[in-house]
Amino acid sequence: MKLSELADIFAAYQGDRCRRSTGPDPEIVQPMALEEAQSGALTYLTQAGTISAWIEKTPAAALILPLNDELIGRAEARSLPWVAVPDPRLAFAQAIAAFYQPYRLPPQIHPTAVIDPSAQLGKDISIGAHVVIPEGCRLGNQVCLHPGVVLYPGVSLGDRTVIHANCTIHERSQIGADCVIQCGAVIGGEGFGFVPVREGWFKMHQSGYVILEDGVEIGCNSTVDRPAVGTTRIGRNTKIDNLVQVGHDVHIGENCAVAAHVGLAGGVRLGRRVILAGQVGVSNRVTIGDGVTVTSKAGVHADVGPGETVSGFPAIPHRLWLRASTLFGRLPELNKAIRQLEQGRSSDT
Amino acid sequence: MKLSELADIFAAYQGDRCRRSTGPDPEIVQPMALEEAQSGALTYLTQAGTISAWIEKTPAAALILPLNDELIGRAEARSLPWVAVPDPRLAFAQAIAAFYQPYRLPPQIHPTAVIDPSAQLGKDISIGAHVVIPEGCRLGNQVCLHPGVVLYPGVSLGDRTVIHANCTIHERSQIGADCVIQCGAVIGGEGFGFVPVREGWFKMHQSGYVILEDGVEIGCNSTVDRPAVGTTRIGRNTKIDNLVQVGHDVHIGENCAVAAHVGLAGGVRLGRRVILAGQVGVSNRVTIGDGVTVTSKAGVHADVGPGETVSGFPAIPHRLWLRASTLFGRLPELNKAIRQLEQGRSSDT
Amino acid sequence: MKLSELADIFAAYQGDRCRRSTGPDPEIVQPMALEEAQSGALTYLTQAGTISAWIEKTPAAALILPLNDELIGRAEARSLPWVAVPDPRLAFAQAIAAFYQPYRLPPQIHPTAVIDPSAQLGKDISIGAHVVIPEGCRLGNQVCLHPGVVLYPGVSLGDRTVIHANCTIHERSQIGADCVIQCGAVIGGEGFGFVPVREGWFKMHQSGYVILEDGVEIGCNSTVDRPAVGTTRIGRNTKIDNLVQVGHDVHIGENCAVAAHVGLAGGVRLGRRVILAGQVGVSNRVTIGDGVTVTSKAGVHADVGPGETVSGFPAIPHRLWLRASTLFGRLPELNKAIRQLEQGRSSDT
Repeated sequence: MKLSELADIFAAYQGDRCRRSTGPDPEIVQPMALEEAQSGALTYLTQAGTISAWIEKTPAAALILPLNDELIGRAEARSLPWVAVPDPRLAFAQAIAAFYQPYRLPPQIHPTAVIDPSAQLGKDISIGAHVVIPEGCRLGNQVCLHPGVVLYPGVSLGDRTVIHANCTIHERSQIGADCVIQCGAVIGGEGFGFVPVREGWFKMHQSGYVILEDGVEIGCNSTVDRPAVGTTRIGRNTKIDNLVQVGHDVHIGENCAVAAHVGLAGGVRLGRRVILAGQVGVSNRVTIGDGVTVTSKAGVHADVGPGETVSGFPAIPHRLWLRASTLFGRLPELNKAIRQLEQGRSSDT
Repeated sequence: MKLSELADIFAAYQGDRCRRSTGPDPEIVQPMALEEAQSGALTYLTQAGTISAWIEKTPAAALILPLNDELIGRAEARSLPWVAVPDPRLAFAQAIAAFYQPYRLPPQIHPTAVIDPSAQLGKDISIGAHVVIPEGCRLGNQVCLHPGVVLYPGVSLGDRTVIHANCTIHERSQIGADCVIQCGAVIGGEGFGFVPVREGWFKMHQSGYVILEDGVEIGCNSTVDRPAVGTTRIGRNTKIDNLVQVGHDVHIGENCAVAAHVGLAGGVRLGRRVILAGQVGVSNRVTIGDGVTVTSKAGVHADVGPGETVSGFPAIPHRLWLRASTLFGRLPELNKAIRQLEQGRSSDT
Repeated sequence: MKLSELADIFAAYQGDRCRRSTGPDPEIVQPMALEEAQSGALTYLTQAGTISAWIEKTPAAALILPLNDELIGRAEARSLPWVAVPDPRLAFAQAIAAFYQPYRLPPQIHPTAVIDPSAQLGKDISIGAHVVIPEGCRLGNQVCLHPGVVLYPGVSLGDRTVIHANCTIHERSQIGADCVIQCGAVIGGEGFGFVPVREGWFKMHQSGYVILEDGVEIGCNSTVDRPAVGTTRIGRNTKIDNLVQVGHDVHIGENCAVAAHVGLAGGVRLGRRVILAGQVGVSNRVTIGDGVTVTSKAGVHADVGPGETVSGFPAIPHRLWLRASTLFGRLPELNKAIRQLEQGRSSDT
């Protein structure tokens, strides 16, 4: 594919601020990372700084750059073809999409799949080996279930949804269109509900179910629990990484991103476009507003208002946490200062 | 079901302090959460406070209340039927149990299951599609293995134990009666045992096995490792949430509750009724006494005596941690105070 | 097996500093842990200290000791046969290896396995029930796939590699010889790549693949993601525990050990012989040098030079962290001291 064709693809999405070098229009063989790019590669750079030294030495065929005249000038100086765009990382993702054909199961129903006659199957579906689809399930058109997927009864899957190998989808789960569930994830398992009684624990049965709206992605081996009553709900286009725990009765808004190892306890509420970094924990029934960012490893015990960035455990405003964290490492020094002040004081009196 | 029938169920378990409104005895359609309750619903409230404003507006058919005259009075003022009990959340769990029929595989052996002739199978068992039961396994009566479950040789499962889809149970594991293993869990995998040597790592084979006593529940995608020698043991009625790691040679007492993402390193000992909140970590060979609570995200490096509540990392007494955490966020302020004191001091001399 | 035979095994690996008691040469029945050892057992002790009181009371047949004359003398005082070695824990691992025969699937291809005719299979392989091997896969000699394993197309597995039950290996993954993938692990899943755009998220397809070099072990339910471009690579003999997340484009060196619940974000680089303890997190694109140890629960935000030991969050040098952590618990006291100094000061002026 010619660089100019890719430039047109970028501009169609990113608009007319996109520019490109005049002169040669190289054939692009593949997109590659900056440090690893070889001849024929298209690679990208998001900002100036030390990393930009690669401009002078990369053997790549062409560069995607931000709209930065200094960087463009340095590429020009080498006669290295370039495309400049508002969001280089987005352009790189567009380039990968232009070259890469994701693997897809062929549209067939494998003879080893076990499918209840009551199941309703859409058109052009792909059902892999050893898949289990019991009574009352409904699959939309072009749904793809990879090998080893087990549905429990009454599951509903929207059009084009893909469930990767060895996932389990529990009874009554409602999964929308264009969702992707990565390998080993468990959707709709029993919430962790036990009431303490004298003899130990009284089990609170989890009679609710899980709703994933359209475009939701769930990472490998993540778990989304169903609640005692009502629903656990994940909003449209929200993306969840690997090994994440979404507890019973959690409601997540649209377009959130939840990184690996995050744990959301029962009844948590997330607004829209919330970003939770890796290993964050959110306590029971906490509400987090629209557009909040929680940085990695933070523990959120109390509600967080819209637009805030919080860090640490218990979570506090991010800027305050940065200062307090630095002082944590200086505690021995502060302690010494206090001791000296006390000695000075006692020697005064 | 009539409210009076449910009230009788509550009283049978919670005793004669239970009371209920005189007057109408509404038909209950289903239990629902307080904020979502609709007409026909039975819902519950555990305490006074802002949440209790729902008493004045819920369209529910009836309320479960604590033994609190003020709350009862407010329900009476609306002529809203009520039941008052010592533990409203327990009553709600009882109500769900009265209405909800958990899904259960029909008692049959699916023809796609692969079962070694040496396996001993109890009465009325349910074996789902694509289950694997190799040599030397013993399954009690009414055991239920959902689709995709893989047993390794020599596994023993007690009466009525349920293993959900796509779990793996390693060789020689001994699982008691009335256990529930949620989807994707791995019981009896190899403990992480490698001895550092000049060339890298010498593998310590894990020749032991796992024992789960009666009534244990293990969450989705959790892992319980077998030890090098001896056993890893989880005591009667202990409940473990999703994505928990139980290391080799861990011994857990009865009636503990372990929340999601907890990690127990090798050789940890937990007493009875220990509660570990989400994302807690316990280091190698630490012993935690009966009745201890460890709050979320804490890291326990040293033994904890019976009945304590500990928090933070490294874990310290909970009350101390609360005060210290508050001061952490005030470190910039404390630092400034010290600087001012130092300046005052130096200006004196 | 006689104690003398085991002693010869230890010495063959640990060298001629190994010694053993003269006199009786007991028959060893099995290796057992110190606290649980019964008659006929061989057990071990790594150091002096309170634990060594077991020397006086163990009913074991013989002891493995460090090269410590005091401990040897105490065993002699009881006429308890002993072997003294440079690394007692290593000797214990050698003893287990001498007694324990790990379970291995018989070399056969189960008739329920679904194998594409284009797959290349080595000699003496073991393919369990319900395994799926699609087009373009290559399996070396003596490879063992336990039941329920699903390969995607184009996977390559080296000689003697074992994949335990219900694992999934994604398209194009290259797994070396002598690797062990524990149950439920997912190798080569899609990295978490989404570019924020006005409408939500633009998916960055993950066109790369995963390489595990020879001798790598991956724990139960761990996940190793493939990158957008290029490779995610885990070096020779590196051992990874359960429930670990290895993000896209991570490169890990040889002989590392990564404990349970560790999360490595995208683009992380680990050198050789790096040790990451439980629940550690490493942020995007951080580089950690050879021989680094990161203690449990630490969060590493910045590069760490070779040979360092770091702790805490954000991670700081371990010794500093120990002192600062102790002072954290004394913050209420420090705060009070500052207040008193301020009062003293104000009463002066």
